[in-house]
Amino acid sequence: MSASDNSKFNIAVAQSGGPTAAINASLAGVFLRASECPEIGKIYGSINGIEGMINGELTPLDSIITCDADAQLLKKTPSTVLGSCRYKLAAYDPNDSVTESEYMSIINTFEEYNIKAFFYIGGNDSMDTVMKLSSYCKAVGKDIKIIGVPKTIDNDLPGTDHTPGFGSAAKYVATTLQEIIRDSRVYSIQSITIVEIMGRNAGWLTASSCVLRANGEPAPHLIYVPEAFPNGFEMERFLDDVAQMMKRYRAVIIAVSEGIVPADRKYVKTGADAFGHTDNSGVAKYLEHCCSERFGCKVRSIELNVMQRCSSHIASLTDIEEAEKIGRAAVDCALEGNTGRMMGFRRISNEPYRIEIVSFDVADAANKEKYLPENWITPDRSGVTTDALNYFLPLIQGEVVTEYRNGIPVHFRLNQ
Amino acid sequence: MSASDNSKFNIAVAQSGGPTAAINASLAGVFLRASECPEIGKIYGSINGIEGMINGELTPLDSIITCDADAQLLKKTPSTVLGSCRYKLAAYDPNDSVTESEYMSIINTFEEYNIKAFFYIGGNDSMDTVMKLSSYCKAVGKDIKIIGVPKTIDNDLPGTDHTPGFGSAAKYVATTLQEIIRDSRVYSIQSITIVEIMGRNAGWLTASSCVLRANGEPAPHLIYVPEAFPNGFEMERFLDDVAQMMKRYRAVIIAVSEGIVPADRKYVKTGADAFGHTDNSGVAKYLEHCCSERFGCKVRSIELNVMQRCSSHIASLTDIEEAEKIGRAAVDCALEGNTGRMMGFRRISNEPYRIEIVSFDVADAANKEKYLPENWITPDRSGVTTDALNYFLPLIQGEVVTEYRNGIPVHFRLNQ
Repeated sequence: MSASDNSKFNIAVAQSGGPTAAINASLAGVFLRASECPEIGKIYGSINGIEGMINGELTPLDSIITCDADAQLLKKTPSTVLGSCRYKLAAYDPNDSVTESEYMSIINTFEEYNIKAFFYIGGNDSMDTVMKLSSYCKAVGKDIKIIGVPKTIDNDLPGTDHTPGFGSAAKYVATTLQEIIRDSRVYSIQSITIVEIMGRNAGWLTASSCVLRANGEPAPHLIYVPEAFPNGFEMERFLDDVAQMMKRYRAVIIAVSEGIVPADRKYVKTGADAFGHTDNSGVAKYLEHCCSERFGCKVRSIELNVMQRCSSHIASLTDIEEAEKIGRAAVDCALEGNTGRMMGFRRISNEPYRIEIVSFDVADAANKEKYLPENWITPDRSGVTTDALNYFLPLIQGEVVTEYRNGIPVHFRLNQ
Repeated sequence: MSASDNSKFNIAVAQSGGPTAAINASLAGVFLRASECPEIGKIYGSINGIEGMINGELTPLDSIITCDADAQLLKKTPSTVLGSCRYKLAAYDPNDSVTESEYMSIINTFEEYNIKAFFYIGGNDSMDTVMKLSSYCKAVGKDIKIIGVPKTIDNDLPGTDHTPGFGSAAKYVATTLQEIIRDSRVYSIQSITIVEIMGRNAGWLTASSCVLRANGEPAPHLIYVPEAFPNGFEMERFLDDVAQMMKRYRAVIIAVSEGIVPADRKYVKTGADAFGHTDNSGVAKYLEHCCSERFGCKVRSIELNVMQRCSSHIASLTDIEEAEKIGRAAVDCALEGNTGRMMGFRRISNEPYRIEIVSFDVADAANKEKYLPENWITPDRSGVTTDALNYFLPLIQGEVVTEYRNGIPVHFRLNQ
C-alpha cells in the first residue's frame, strides 16, 4: 500500500457486537476520511460484521452515503446501519478444514474486491478478530492492513482512555436517572427505587451515574459496581446501606450494575412461569424483592434495558465527534502502513478536556477487559469518588442537533 | 368573587396522581395567569395534592417561582414540583366524623388563607375530588370556586379531546420505540421484540406508537390495546399473528398495553422467588415466554416503565404549551364565576391542527374513563387505523429547548 502503487486500492469496513449510539459515527468517519484519500478507490461496507467478509456480502458505501447530508444523518442514527454479528473467528488451524475455509473465504473477498485495508468497529471480541486476521494475513504473506476501531457502551476496552459509545450511554443514563429521581419524589411516603444499568463485569456505566452530583443532586444515593464485590454482593450489608439512606432520604435511589451477583446467587432463578420457564429477572428485580421483604415500603425496580445503548436522541456530542474522529484516524493509521492495531484515546487533561488519538498493538486489548480503578470505589463499597466524577464528566458534554420529521427523530435507514 | 370585591383574594393550586412531563407546565400556567390578575393576591401551592389542603401545608408560589426564568424552567421539569398524592376524598357524610372533619379541614384552610379558588391538576380520581369538593362548598354556602385541570399520560379523561402529559409520553414512546427498532435489526437472525407501554384499561399510549408510520416505518408490526379484547387476550390468535409477521420481517416488533390480560390469566403469576414472592412481571415478559416456547428464536421484552411518563428531555412542545394554556384558562374560568368544572380541549381541525379550550361539568369526567374508539382498531385486532394516526400525530409535534448544565438537563428543584 505504498505511495508508489500505480492503481487505486479499495477498503472495507464492518460493524460488530452490541449496538451503540456512536458506532455509525465511526463508520461515517472511516467513509469520510477514505473518500478524501486519492489512493483509495471503493469503500465497501461488510454486511453483518465479519460474516459479510466470509460470505462475500459487501455493499459499496457510496451507494448508501450519497451526500454529506447522508453522512451527517448517519452519525446521528443509533445501532449499526450495516448490521452486526456476534461471530468470533476460530484460531487459525491449517488442520481444521472449516476454520481454514473461513480464513480463505475472507482472503478471497479481499482479493476479489481488491481490498487492501479492513476496518473493524467493535468491542473486545471484535479486537480478537482483528488480531487473528492480521496475524493470518502476515503469516500467508498478504499485505492487507487490519485495524480495530473501538466501540462499546461498557467502556471496558484496555489501551484506550474510553470507548466511543460510552459517553452517549452515560448521558442517557444521567438524563433518565434524573427524570426517575423527579418521578420518585412525588409522594409523601418512603420509597426505594432500584435502577439496573448495563455492565456485566465492568461497572463504568453504572458508576457514571455519579455525574448528577456535578449539578448538586445527591442521588443516586447508592452506586453498586461489580468491581467492588470480588467475593459476591453481600445482601446484609446492602440492606444496612439502604436502611441508613432511608433515615436521610424519603425516596432512596440506587444504581446497580446488571453484573452484581449476590453472594448467595439465589437471584439467578426468581421462579418459573406457567410454562415452567425460569424467569431470569435481573438483579434489580431481586433486590426489589429483598427490600420489600425487609422494609415493607414502596419499592420498584427499573431496567434501562437496550434504551441505554441506542438513545441517539440524547447522545453526547463529544462522543459522536470523537467516534467520527477515531474512524478517520483509523484510515490514516492503515495508510501509514500499520496492521493489527487498535485505535484509542489518550487523555491529556481533564480541564480543559483534551485527548489525542493513538494506536497500539491490538493484542493488548483483544479478549481483555478494563475495570473501574479500585481507588475510584469508596471504602464503603457503595459509591464512587470525585476522581471518577472528573473522569466521566467531560464524556457527556454537548448535545447533537436532532432533525425531526413529523415530531419524530429522523434516522438514516438502509432497509427495513 | 365579583369585580366589586374590595379586597384581593388568594388562590391555591395542587397536583395529584401519577407524574407527567407536563403537569408542572399547567402549574406554571395557573401561576402566570393568576399573577396577571389584579384581583388575585397570593397564589399558594398545596403540598402533596389535596393532602396539603387537609393538613394546611401550603407554600406561597412566588417564593418558589421568583422570576420568569423559574417559570420557564418549571415548564420543562418533569413530575410534580409540589408533590402528589393518591388520596381520594370520601363522599361527604355528616354522620361520619372522620369524613366531616376532612372537609372541614379543607374549608378551614380556605378560610385561614383567604382562598377563593382552588385548582386541582390531575386525572380521573382528582376530578372526583373536584366534584365532591365543589358540591360540598355549594352545600355549605361557601363561595369557593373549584376547577379541575386535566393531566394524565393515559389520555383517558372524558370530555376533552386529549389530556396534557399524553403528547409528551407519546413522543417519548415513538422516539424510544424507533431506537429499539434500530437496535433490534442488527443481527441476521430472526427475533421478536415486545415493548410494554403504560395503560391499564385504555390503549391510547400504546396505539400512539403507530405514529412511526408517518415516516414510513412499518414497525411496530403488531399493536395490542385492551379495548380490542373485551373477552380477554387470545394467546393462540396472538401467536398466529406473530407467526405471520415472522414470514415478512426478520425482526418483529410488538407494542402491547400493560393492561392486556391473556384470557387464561396465567400471566398474573410468573413464579416465585427465593423468598416465596410471586413475581408480578408484566404482560410483555409473559408474552416473551410464550413466544420463546412457540418459536424458539431470540425474544426479548422491554418495559418502558416510568420513563414514559417523566421524560421531559423529549417532551412535545405542543403538549407543554397546551398544558400551560389550559392552566391559564382554568384561572379565567374561575374568575368568570364557575365552579365544579373541568377544563378540556376541543379539536377544531387536524390540518392545520387547531384546538380551543372549553370547560364542562366535572361530573362528566370524574371516575370515568375514555377508551380508544372501536372503529380505530383494525378488524384483525392487531393494529390501529389511519384515523388514529391522524389523531395522534399533531400531539407530538415540536420540541422543547432543553437547558443543559454539565451535560445534564437542568431541572427546577424545590427540595431534595
